[in-house]
Amino acid sequence: MSQYWSRLVHSLTPYVPGEQPKVDNLIKLNTNENPYPPSPQVLQAIAEQNNEKLRLYPDPNSDLLKQAIANYHGLNSTQVFVGNGSDEVLAHAFQALLKQDAPLLFPDITYSFYPVYCGLYGIEYNNVPLNAEFAIEVEDYQQKCGGIIFPNPNAPTGRLLPLSAIKQLLEMHPNRVVLVDEAYIDFGGESAICLVNEYPNLLVSQTLSKSRSLAGMRVGFAVGQAHLIDALERVKNSFNSYPIDRLALYGATASFADEEYFQDACQKIINTRETLTAAMTDMGFKVIPSAANFVFATHPQKSAEELALALRERKIIVRYFNKPRIDQYLRITIGTDAENQALINALKTLTANTTSAA
Amino acid sequence: MSQYWSRLVHSLTPYVPGEQPKVDNLIKLNTNENPYPPSPQVLQAIAEQNNEKLRLYPDPNSDLLKQAIANYHGLNSTQVFVGNGSDEVLAHAFQALLKQDAPLLFPDITYSFYPVYCGLYGIEYNNVPLNAEFAIEVEDYQQKCGGIIFPNPNAPTGRLLPLSAIKQLLEMHPNRVVLVDEAYIDFGGESAICLVNEYPNLLVSQTLSKSRSLAGMRVGFAVGQAHLIDALERVKNSFNSYPIDRLALYGATASFADEEYFQDACQKIINTRETLTAAMTDMGFKVIPSAANFVFATHPQKSAEELALALRERKIIVRYFNKPRIDQYLRITIGTDAENQALINALKTLTANTTSAA
Repeated sequence: MSQYWSRLVHSLTPYVPGEQPKVDNLIKLNTNENPYPPSPQVLQAIAEQNNEKLRLYPDPNSDLLKQAIANYHGLNSTQVFVGNGSDEVLAHAFQALLKQDAPLLFPDITYSFYPVYCGLYGIEYNNVPLNAEFAIEVEDYQQKCGGIIFPNPNAPTGRLLPLSAIKQLLEMHPNRVVLVDEAYIDFGGESAICLVNEYPNLLVSQTLSKSRSLAGMRVGFAVGQAHLIDALERVKNSFNSYPIDRLALYGATASFADEEYFQDACQKIINTRETLTAAMTDMGFKVIPSAANFVFATHPQKSAEELALALRERKIIVRYFNKPRIDQYLRITIGTDAENQALINALKTLTANTTSAA
Repeated sequence: MSQYWSRLVHSLTPYVPGEQPKVDNLIKLNTNENPYPPSPQVLQAIAEQNNEKLRLYPDPNSDLLKQAIANYHGLNSTQVFVGNGSDEVLAHAFQALLKQDAPLLFPDITYSFYPVYCGLYGIEYNNVPLNAEFAIEVEDYQQKCGGIIFPNPNAPTGRLLPLSAIKQLLEMHPNRVVLVDEAYIDFGGESAICLVNEYPNLLVSQTLSKSRSLAGMRVGFAVGQAHLIDALERVKNSFNSYPIDRLALYGATASFADEEYFQDACQKIINTRETLTAAMTDMGFKVIPSAANFVFATHPQKSAEELALALRERKIIVRYFNKPRIDQYLRITIGTDAENQALINALKTLTANTTSAA
């Protein structure tokens, strides 16, 4: 607290990201990073741009990247917005599109940055409870609102909402923006990007941090009809002209050129996820069906917090949220097959002498 | 305009950055970039980090860089805030510290992003006119205010305010934050950073874009007492957890390790600036005394706009602002000696047959 702070600062409850440990000998399954490196083409593109031109500002509009994303998704580049990670893209969207005269709606169990953005921009919101199986019930969103946002698949549950349900939401509130946060969509979901030209109220955000193995480079994007993108550009250009640096610009662009590498890495993660899901189910865990690069699971006889601590002692870090409804769940990122096997072995030890729920 | 925009978006007047042309054969003296490349140690550090670890998030707190900046300036790392370019740092400072119940004060001729931030965050402001010689008159700031911000040296004038005057401002408004934006301080000014431990209301921002030749990497920072830095961290952590990517983190940190390269590049630019100032004065220009990597100059018989267009035809881009009081001035970035000579030759041709003001 300080007399120099603005009134807003006193009221903020900042987001707490997952731990980024500074030692190397851990199996890090806590922040949904990709266990595989970025495409060699990405590293090559960055290396080529690591030269004296770093003295020059990047293109403030990141046109090269916007065009690559537009081409990849069959859109026009005026339908693409890019930012310094999808968190920055979401922040601008909250300020530009989701701040309205009625409360924003999002699930009670969801990405915990959403209420933080609401605090930052003074946006009223209502939490809409997921059902007992952690699924979104579309009819619960039939209420006065200023907009809707949810991750799809949801975080930290991993559960996917089908496009048919997203269409229902879009048609239920045609005058409000529905923001589908697809950070994890490439691990098994169908993207709502195919609906962008049909629905003027649809904004879809994605990130290169997960499926494209570029968490370290901070690039995210949103697609929607040009009038929605215009709003984001107006806020961005009132905040920071050059959010994407030269190396991120070229590295991210290169990522969209190596489709085979991308598909292969996604498929490996999906396969590992299915292996983990089967093994954990065998141990008595209830595992929420996941379309993401993580699983969300609870054990009927073991405390989630204690399991997380015991895994930590074995140098395996997973994410535990001490929050209502989910405080008996662990969110576990999908690692390499070797990491996955180490996790499975540790969990087997930790859940030995319990009775399977089956 | 769109029904989906928040009320704020309709009211914004975004910042317009200087042109970033996509062709290479221009002498680019319009956006105050450094004509010399970053230190080889910076490129080396980036190359070393351009590897599979890009799949991992960066340190959200950028501790390595904060410590390097703290060591460089003899501060504690809790007195350092870093962001995605000093524009992002400034944006957070406007929201966290400069939004108060009285108007913010800044010069009438100054960095044109300041009123844009005010628009973004709903901050009332008063412009305080510079005197006829484009200097800040400290006594004009003796008025009720919510804070003060100015660049030092000022942009686009290049004129420096001495530390004694900054102390007067700090003591005039001990309960308000005075933000000294030192984007250009390394080209001849004395930094106010030496006053940070003495004044709890002083925040100083700097950038690696100009004197450290890293405009392409987007890194800026602010220093002040820990209670001011805390406010910035709270806003940052409510906006984007990881604003500095892995390559920017290591590249920026390396920059502070190569003091000799840094000092040498700054001195070369200062020398070239003095050469340009003398040559332009000989041609009849009035050149405002500059402590920055640009000069701000007017010719008594030549239209600034026409000069800018004529230079452009000769493939030399400078910045022209069509704004009150400065619409007869050009802002010209200091280039290499060869670029400088080409500029001098062009200006000589364009001002031939005019009478020297002397």
